[in-house]
Amino acid sequence: MSLTDIEIAQQVKMKPIGEIAEKAGIAEKDLELYGNYKAKINYNVMDKLKDKQNGKLILVTAISPTPAGEGKTTTVVGLGDALQRIGKNAFIALREPSLGPVFGVKGGAAGGGYAQVVPMEDINLHFTGDFHAIGAANNLLAAMIDNHIHQGNQLHIDTRKITWKRVVDMNDRQLRFIVNGLNGKINGVPREDGFDITVASEIMAVLCLSNSISEMKEKLKNIIIGYTTEDEPVTAGQLHAHGAMAALLKDALKPNLVQTLEHTPALIHGGPFANIAHGCNSIMATKLALKYADYVVTEAGFGADLGAEKFMDIKCRIADLQPDAVVVVATVRALKMHGGVAKTELNHENLAALETGLPNLLKHLENVQEVFGMPAVVAINKFPTDSDAELNLVKEKCEALGVKVVLSDVWANGGAGGEDLAREVVRLANTVNNFRFAYDLEDSITEKLEKIVKKVYGGIGIELSKSAQKEINRLETLGFGNLPICMAKTQYSLSDDPTKLGRPEGFNVTIKDIKVSAGAGFIVALTGTIMTMPGLPKKPAAENIDVDENGQIQGLF
Amino acid sequence: MSLTDIEIAQQVKMKPIGEIAEKAGIAEKDLELYGNYKAKINYNVMDKLKDKQNGKLILVTAISPTPAGEGKTTTVVGLGDALQRIGKNAFIALREPSLGPVFGVKGGAAGGGYAQVVPMEDINLHFTGDFHAIGAANNLLAAMIDNHIHQGNQLHIDTRKITWKRVVDMNDRQLRFIVNGLNGKINGVPREDGFDITVASEIMAVLCLSNSISEMKEKLKNIIIGYTTEDEPVTAGQLHAHGAMAALLKDALKPNLVQTLEHTPALIHGGPFANIAHGCNSIMATKLALKYADYVVTEAGFGADLGAEKFMDIKCRIADLQPDAVVVVATVRALKMHGGVAKTELNHENLAALETGLPNLLKHLENVQEVFGMPAVVAINKFPTDSDAELNLVKEKCEALGVKVVLSDVWANGGAGGEDLAREVVRLANTVNNFRFAYDLEDSITEKLEKIVKKVYGGIGIELSKSAQKEINRLETLGFGNLPICMAKTQYSLSDDPTKLGRPEGFNVTIKDIKVSAGAGFIVALTGTIMTMPGLPKKPAAENIDVDENGQIQGLF
Repeated sequence: MSLTDIEIAQQVKMKPIGEIAEKAGIAEKDLELYGNYKAKINYNVMDKLKDKQNGKLILVTAISPTPAGEGKTTTVVGLGDALQRIGKNAFIALREPSLGPVFGVKGGAAGGGYAQVVPMEDINLHFTGDFHAIGAANNLLAAMIDNHIHQGNQLHIDTRKITWKRVVDMNDRQLRFIVNGLNGKINGVPREDGFDITVASEIMAVLCLSNSISEMKEKLKNIIIGYTTEDEPVTAGQLHAHGAMAALLKDALKPNLVQTLEHTPALIHGGPFANIAHGCNSIMATKLALKYADYVVTEAGFGADLGAEKFMDIKCRIADLQPDAVVVVATVRALKMHGGVAKTELNHENLAALETGLPNLLKHLENVQEVFGMPAVVAINKFPTDSDAELNLVKEKCEALGVKVVLSDVWANGGAGGEDLAREVVRLANTVNNFRFAYDLEDSITEKLEKIVKKVYGGIGIELSKSAQKEINRLETLGFGNLPICMAKTQYSLSDDPTKLGRPEGFNVTIKDIKVSAGAGFIVALTGTIMTMPGLPKKPAAENIDVDENGQIQGLF
Repeated sequence: MSLTDIEIAQQVKMKPIGEIAEKAGIAEKDLELYGNYKAKINYNVMDKLKDKQNGKLILVTAISPTPAGEGKTTTVVGLGDALQRIGKNAFIALREPSLGPVFGVKGGAAGGGYAQVVPMEDINLHFTGDFHAIGAANNLLAAMIDNHIHQGNQLHIDTRKITWKRVVDMNDRQLRFIVNGLNGKINGVPREDGFDITVASEIMAVLCLSNSISEMKEKLKNIIIGYTTEDEPVTAGQLHAHGAMAALLKDALKPNLVQTLEHTPALIHGGPFANIAHGCNSIMATKLALKYADYVVTEAGFGADLGAEKFMDIKCRIADLQPDAVVVVATVRALKMHGGVAKTELNHENLAALETGLPNLLKHLENVQEVFGMPAVVAINKFPTDSDAELNLVKEKCEALGVKVVLSDVWANGGAGGEDLAREVVRLANTVNNFRFAYDLEDSITEKLEKIVKKVYGGIGIELSKSAQKEINRLETLGFGNLPICMAKTQYSLSDDPTKLGRPEGFNVTIKDIKVSAGAGFIVALTGTIMTMPGLPKKPAAENIDVDENGQIQGLF
């Protein structure tokens, strides 16, 4: 019987993190240890490194995810290890997992098989406390808002127009829609409210998009928490909350250093959930990695329609970063699911279904190449059930677009299974690219939404709800028209309908709601039926998680 | 101008925590560093130490607190430093601060002046993440309860009889009473609910009262989350939540090592809020300190009616610990407030008011000596405004009970200001005492409540609400009659009415509600108008907290 991820992870002897840091060129005095295998890196190292040349930035993205699994994080880890193996100085830069999915469906999120980051239990549970700090800062602001109202509401906040929600790092549908402040005047002011999952907090985005404490504090100050009875925006700064919030976040802002099973240095810092947030790791971690390494492999959540679009249009734009190559991860099995095959039937060759599902991959490639002007490679995570005919069909279709398909076997073989991929990535990263954005900041909000839907999703246009249209007008009047857009959309389809697999066509995307994240510096567009608080499944993964008397954890996948 | 606490703390050069540990006899391999100045200690060290003799256990308690401030934590720190100065091998064992009061009225809670534990900013903010872990475990269970109901409610949980609340580590009155699960069937099941502050979670008590992971897991399994439609209790174990909860808590269970400004080792671990919880630091920290030190100075929250009562009747009973001496902290100013003087008038000598207020101190002494059979010393934290006549009056009244009064100046002078106190503590701790509990476990629940009210609070009896009486009957039927009692009562008065200062007499205590904490192993009695979720004041302390570009924090007191 094959080993589980956690068993593999627990078998490998980690190196002390100080040793990993030293090899990577990070001085011991710039580390803050969290146990023996995790460390935070001090902000101020960037000052010393500012004249150093940046390494190459490699983005790993994927097809639209399916229940078959694609292995994007696994590929990032394996590619980093493979780059080390072929003699390159590589770093990986990942996002931190959220507790919600760990206890829900997904289990852990630290790669898989022989391509994992470790200590995987810590990374999947509290890690260094960053998300708890984000939750505390978020909820401090919420408590200060309601306290302000309770104590006399000098700012005339309209309790029906508060946009700031509380958060909890848990899949907890029961908290989506609540009424609070009940039971008389000593217990607050009754109003409709709700909770998001922590990763959806604007503070997550603020943290990921800041280059320093000062910048973070400024962004926190600008957060709009709602509107007055006269429809004027009210900010966290007006509530004098930003200083205390920044104090709560001062350590969370420092990137976290861990290692892969093959001891490649890995920075894991900030934000998952590219369906409802911007879904990229922090600017500070990426920039730091680019100073220390010649090749930095990073990821953005879900397919190239979601995470990669936001990586380009939000993260790279705000951080003034320039990617050098893009890897699109797929599996034959997942492509067959896009072609309509049930999960139980994926072990059989099915060229017809593959041909029906392949356009999903091809659209993501088109996005990378034509929309964003980047060179791409397809990494196929190989399964024993993939037939040669199936693999050849994928190659043929991709090569028609000038894209090489590389088989990857990092799950089973670690870095050794990713050397071909590493070589192609190095080749692509040293070609000239035509990196560009999907829209210009000067476009109107509606134009930006249309460009994303038409160019990136392949739809025919947008349908704005009345409230979305009203909010667009207000935000443009308030001077927020020139911000980038953060789409909240289902990850399962290129459209806003999770049932439309493959490459849907002729669809409109419904923009249900619009909201400004004035601190993070983008406008959030909620599409379809996307929710910012997940729920637990019938049998939560939590039921299988356990810990023994020595603190050894079981049941994390 | 004199320095603030944080300025004093930031001026002192801390020693690396490994050095503090080494001097205390803790091997480096048993430490997990959290930065350079904080460390967790592995559980398994207790195995190696089990044959070592315990040191002496000194409890520091206080009069009923007033807005004038008494300085209990400051005294613990200063006494620990003073014991070191007079050549004793001392440890201190404190409780972790909660974020709620840090951002509310109180500011920091790590001692004051020259008697502080450091790094005070870290200790007051996230520290090593223990409270976040407790919050996550608490809220995971809550999410699993509501998910169980949403997914079909196989256990027939009655949504009107759920006793498990969600928590947030924030003073947030808006969440006290809520209705959640609103907006249709995909969003849960509508019901009345509410949030407590994290420190009031039963999980805080479970963590503080466990000796090992296995014991903690067993306690978590036994937590009663509510009742079925047939009135049968439903446990966390039936929801298969205890394993994942224990996994979340595995690191939080390890005691945290820091240092005082004079480098005395300090274990800070677990639970404040002796008004609504049991309010003592963890058993593991206390037991560990007793193995490493000859004198362990610890505290229990608020006056001897609250923290000290629970220290004796819950913590010492469950942990089989035996205290050796008790320090009761008071100030002349606070005693004058108990005598009816306004805070603005405390700078003037007022012997009449002092005489009126002194019985508060005398009742707390009576509790220590007569109820619990322990030797006591009174530590007066000296202020420049105290007159000799005032100090003599305090001495005279205490000496009539055979209790020495020692002036303490640790705030201004650190350990040097506490040497007299240290010598008296050493003398007392080496006398024979008659330690006993305020009630027997075999007493009925009502008898226990009456003994606490009559013996410890000095009241005439209890008034049970109908629902409390009903719950007592149910709990005795279910076999929980033999558990100790955790009173939730205002800290400001010996009675359940916060306005009754000094030594009130002739009062009844209203028992509003009764609830079993079957995991922690006690019965909670809610008295008067006590609330398990505080609110923020008109001008929250958070408004003054800030952090500069180097991560240096300002405005924590």
